[in-house]
Amino acid sequence: MDRPIVGITMGDPASIGPEISLKVFQNPELYQKCRPLLIGDSNVLEKVMEKLPDRKVKLNKIADVKDARFVYGVMDVYDMHEVDINHFKFGEVSKMAGNAAFQYVKKVIELANHHEIDATVTNALNKEAMNLAGHHYAGHTEIYGKFTNTPNYTMMLAHENLRVVHVSTHVSLRQACDMVKKQRIEECIRLANEVCRNLGIVQPKVAVAGLNPHAGEDGLFGDEEIKEIAPAVKNMQIQGIDVEGPIPADTVFAKCIGGMYDIVVAMYHDQGHIPVKMVGFHYDKEKKKWNSVAGINVTLGLPIIRTSVDHGTAFDQVLKGTANEISLENAIDYAIKLAKNK
Amino acid sequence: MDRPIVGITMGDPASIGPEISLKVFQNPELYQKCRPLLIGDSNVLEKVMEKLPDRKVKLNKIADVKDARFVYGVMDVYDMHEVDINHFKFGEVSKMAGNAAFQYVKKVIELANHHEIDATVTNALNKEAMNLAGHHYAGHTEIYGKFTNTPNYTMMLAHENLRVVHVSTHVSLRQACDMVKKQRIEECIRLANEVCRNLGIVQPKVAVAGLNPHAGEDGLFGDEEIKEIAPAVKNMQIQGIDVEGPIPADTVFAKCIGGMYDIVVAMYHDQGHIPVKMVGFHYDKEKKKWNSVAGINVTLGLPIIRTSVDHGTAFDQVLKGTANEISLENAIDYAIKLAKNK
Repeated sequence: MDRPIVGITMGDPASIGPEISLKVFQNPELYQKCRPLLIGDSNVLEKVMEKLPDRKVKLNKIADVKDARFVYGVMDVYDMHEVDINHFKFGEVSKMAGNAAFQYVKKVIELANHHEIDATVTNALNKEAMNLAGHHYAGHTEIYGKFTNTPNYTMMLAHENLRVVHVSTHVSLRQACDMVKKQRIEECIRLANEVCRNLGIVQPKVAVAGLNPHAGEDGLFGDEEIKEIAPAVKNMQIQGIDVEGPIPADTVFAKCIGGMYDIVVAMYHDQGHIPVKMVGFHYDKEKKKWNSVAGINVTLGLPIIRTSVDHGTAFDQVLKGTANEISLENAIDYAIKLAKNK
Repeated sequence: MDRPIVGITMGDPASIGPEISLKVFQNPELYQKCRPLLIGDSNVLEKVMEKLPDRKVKLNKIADVKDARFVYGVMDVYDMHEVDINHFKFGEVSKMAGNAAFQYVKKVIELANHHEIDATVTNALNKEAMNLAGHHYAGHTEIYGKFTNTPNYTMMLAHENLRVVHVSTHVSLRQACDMVKKQRIEECIRLANEVCRNLGIVQPKVAVAGLNPHAGEDGLFGDEEIKEIAPAVKNMQIQGIDVEGPIPADTVFAKCIGGMYDIVVAMYHDQGHIPVKMVGFHYDKEKKKWNSVAGINVTLGLPIIRTSVDHGTAFDQVLKGTANEISLENAIDYAIKLAKNK
């Protein structure tokens, strides 16, 4: 596949999603790599261009992927008509914006399910707004699970060569301990190996982190390593995957960054999120804002490709012209790589 | 205090401790900052100098701190005579070396307890060797607790401006969840605030991490934030400490590095160890070794000052001339700062 068609949701209309999308579409290199299509509302984009004139680009408003032109200088927008611009405010949580963001996601999944596009990328949505609109999901991942009929999936976070797959995510730490089970770990090892291959790594090296400090130190601090993690690693080695573990969590990520592994299976949300955000996020004390929020989020185990920005809606930064588009660019690049190697 | 007397243990004689100590004592700047004293065995140091001639320095072997000269070019060694050099091997776990390492620690604590020295710094010991010798401790920290009669202490890890204090350390993650209790968190906030002041920070800003993902998201994923952490933070604010929390663990450390906070109270071992080692540890794939293992360990709550290297005995690197002394230098610098501001 030369230039995959990548469907990109605009995210919550009141968020930085529209402006960072415009910024990304202004880059001619994007069109050399893929055929990008925004799923969103053209009237919101026009409003952003009014306020931030340097983001200006021509819009091709369409209702069918076939009508997209995919040429640099014209932004193809799959126009959803969800936002009544007269009753809309930037930077605020609202039911209308929450519903719009949800509908963009539902549409992009539908287009991918029908093979009209090759990959999907999501901007941030606001959970509170989405809930106000009556769509009760923990986040994007759960929406994708539902509308692709996928019961088992896992969240990968990545920044440059640090890639982390999570055994569990949005549960309490006590519940996360309960979810450290052989079968689930094996599934995550398999998905970790697979995504690396899809990214073009011929012989992926997978590391599995321990749950307890020092990976339990031979059962001295907890026995999940002995009962669940080590047997899962062994089973996957037998199936031919180059996997090692359990490895103490406080050094395994630095080893991955150093090139010893291509991907790490983390046992719980913060174990994987802390190291990825340590390398991708840079806070500026003077400006009181994040200088960089690089890093991306990929849902593994779905029948379609989905990558996402790794940051939130950043309502406080909307229309200031300072919102950073790196994470969105990274997410698109990852989606392209995955689509090309599929 | 102009130049505090700093007692430095040699660590396990078979480890990289002796050679990195020699390296550090060869730096004239060390003597401008403090009066350094090594607690160890002179015959082991002489053996190292035989193998690594560029580490050569004159030794002043003493049995009383009063006999130390503290002049650059002569290394004062409080000579413990624990190692029989004819039955000693570098790079190996042994009962004799384990006992020697333990006796150095016991001695340095004794000297500090008696105010003969102003601060103590420890090189790494090998727990297996120490156990073989019949000294059953989880590590240095527990030896210090015992020989200073201190029941409540906490481990701080630090690398540059990232400082982390731990509510618990060497227990299973399930037990760590049980230890997230108001009283203990308050104690850690107090110690965190105190150590920052001792480091010369006039108005320390203390952050407290959450236990659960997204700091529990208002009780959605676990309630320790609501029941234990938030009340502890509030109590300490009432007592005049500038403290905030609970803050989601996946961003609080990047905020600390960015200068928003001076120190973070972490809820468990890996939550604090992952971020500090992410910034201080760099693994080199080609050389198959750690290029840098910067970062230090400080025990808070003791009546004496104790800082330590943040790495292990590294038996595989002994006498190769490649062992890195940065962590030991950092630990000495921290001890000096703490002694000067005491």
